[in-house]
Amino acid sequence: MIGSVHSLPENHPLLARTSDSALVRAARRQPGPRPVWFMRQAGRSLPEYRETRRGVAMLDSCFRPDLVTEITLQPVRRHGVDAAILFSDIVVPLKAIGVDVDIKPGVGPVLAQPFRTRRDLDRLRPLAQHDVETVLQGAADVVAELGSTPLIGFAGAPFTLASYLIEGGPSRNHARTKALMHSDPDLWHDLAERLADLAGTFLRLQILAGASAVQLFDSWAGALSAVEYHEFVLPHTCRVFTAIAEYGVPRIHFGVGTGELLSAMAEPDIDVVGIDFRVPLPEAARRIGPGRALQGNLDPALLLADYEVVARQVETIVAQGDDLSGHIFNLGHGVLPETDPGVLTAVVDLVHSLRPH
Amino acid sequence: MIGSVHSLPENHPLLARTSDSALVRAARRQPGPRPVWFMRQAGRSLPEYRETRRGVAMLDSCFRPDLVTEITLQPVRRHGVDAAILFSDIVVPLKAIGVDVDIKPGVGPVLAQPFRTRRDLDRLRPLAQHDVETVLQGAADVVAELGSTPLIGFAGAPFTLASYLIEGGPSRNHARTKALMHSDPDLWHDLAERLADLAGTFLRLQILAGASAVQLFDSWAGALSAVEYHEFVLPHTCRVFTAIAEYGVPRIHFGVGTGELLSAMAEPDIDVVGIDFRVPLPEAARRIGPGRALQGNLDPALLLADYEVVARQVETIVAQGDDLSGHIFNLGHGVLPETDPGVLTAVVDLVHSLRPH
Repeated sequence: MIGSVHSLPENHPLLARTSDSALVRAARRQPGPRPVWFMRQAGRSLPEYRETRRGVAMLDSCFRPDLVTEITLQPVRRHGVDAAILFSDIVVPLKAIGVDVDIKPGVGPVLAQPFRTRRDLDRLRPLAQHDVETVLQGAADVVAELGSTPLIGFAGAPFTLASYLIEGGPSRNHARTKALMHSDPDLWHDLAERLADLAGTFLRLQILAGASAVQLFDSWAGALSAVEYHEFVLPHTCRVFTAIAEYGVPRIHFGVGTGELLSAMAEPDIDVVGIDFRVPLPEAARRIGPGRALQGNLDPALLLADYEVVARQVETIVAQGDDLSGHIFNLGHGVLPETDPGVLTAVVDLVHSLRPH
Repeated sequence: MIGSVHSLPENHPLLARTSDSALVRAARRQPGPRPVWFMRQAGRSLPEYRETRRGVAMLDSCFRPDLVTEITLQPVRRHGVDAAILFSDIVVPLKAIGVDVDIKPGVGPVLAQPFRTRRDLDRLRPLAQHDVETVLQGAADVVAELGSTPLIGFAGAPFTLASYLIEGGPSRNHARTKALMHSDPDLWHDLAERLADLAGTFLRLQILAGASAVQLFDSWAGALSAVEYHEFVLPHTCRVFTAIAEYGVPRIHFGVGTGELLSAMAEPDIDVVGIDFRVPLPEAARRIGPGRALQGNLDPALLLADYEVVARQVETIVAQGDDLSGHIFNLGHGVLPETDPGVLTAVVDLVHSLRPH
């Protein structure tokens, strides 16, 4: 169980435990073996996950410590990945403060009442530790099992969370969200600031529960132009990362379709930028500049191709990663549910077998 | 009605009729007033469209000359745009050769039996004029009404059509399509070549029916890496454009999320590259190089914002377009159904009122 800790000394045993892990070292751009993990590694590609989730609604499972622990650990056991990522969903902190959100199978997060006016801000109170006590209990139990393998905590970034709130569900165009940010920038900034505080607090609590690194998912940021991103999103995303700077854990920033945004997404106080598969790692490094490790970027769709195609592409990415200062092997987006888990295990083994040149 | 014409002399009255139009001149990078039209200008944003379509299934309406004519002309009458675009759908030529495809409201094109094996190639016979006679009749009737305003013909590009065939419907990840192209490149290239011939023939028939320009929609190309695009898509897209080169009508090439692909998408024998809203026009021009006009690129989501926001963005894009050699004002993607048509009319008026600096 988490106590009422409110800051973490640098020599805290939870940090020391994983400071020599491949993930933490690569994120800090220190030499060492290349780590590999997969976004959505805990999930529908695993038969044991489908078995564990049977009859339990997605958001219910995220608040049950026994399920959080079991599901988070499943891919570590099966694939031997170099990090666990907390089994959760980006709407969990919203649910935790009482927003009426549900995850509909095959659709995604759906809100009973979308956010549209200034009055809706009242529905976003600050997150308190007791709101997510069971989630943090799950995280702490995971950490106790993981030994020297790091747990990655995560949260949804302000823009992506705001899009769910304003659109009322997943959206291809984010049209109402963009209309609101342009037409009522004051309301937009107030909303995004509250969501930044929500994400910052949730990440802080996960760190205090033992997470050795965190990833902020701005999954839909690629829907924005660079001008919009700078004006409406970047300040709030910076606020999230600044809120957890004191803990010294590696911070990863990821979005999809972000080719035009990479230099901006590297601006906050972070350690790692997650790269989607559309931009080759050397070009991503050029856009981002020095001082950041990169994470990525195998196209998850390719995992459905013949294994020799997968292996060739893994080798290409590993070779590109050799030229970077810090590379965490990952996909360019989450594991697709129809992925053969045997292929994921083979990719982990292959990455581990390829030594730096 | 279309005769059995099989080539079109350069001084053919159908071409001469529009050769001095703003659209054709801008596409040829000749000086003149800036043209404006909107992707999906004929469609659900217009109450008269919803009225005309009442009780008629989407694909049925595409094969009825009276509806094709009426719906194609509606936005020209209402907004005063500088071009009509044939009311159709990219799956129309597939339907016309007997592929069992339907358009489900709120979903998109859905196939009864997805394409997965070499045997499925037999379901793609060449398109003949009589397969689309009613469509071409609609196009010819539109042209007769349009006077000196050009009709733009269109078709779906091989990759985007192949994705619908292989996935069986709209897809976010195009995973089966990518798996097939990588795992069985011979089958992929055979499939893409047939789709290129289908698109080329359909565009040719539209030109012979009086279309003064054509646009090839590779809507989903942005899902591919540049390496994949070059190897698996570009040769087939080139084949489409080469098939219609002899007619001398302006050819526009468009896709969404194509920031990493712009120079490749400009490689075929074309006149205009359509730019989505993620890449500012000056940067797009830099990536593409000289010799191509640009079309775009107002974010359709912004049309839902306050009009002063819209107007400011239109002015920015027009000013950027002034520095290009050939600019056709358009959106960066199709009109959203919830768009106020009055805003579209105001944008047309605003673009027309802004003189080159």
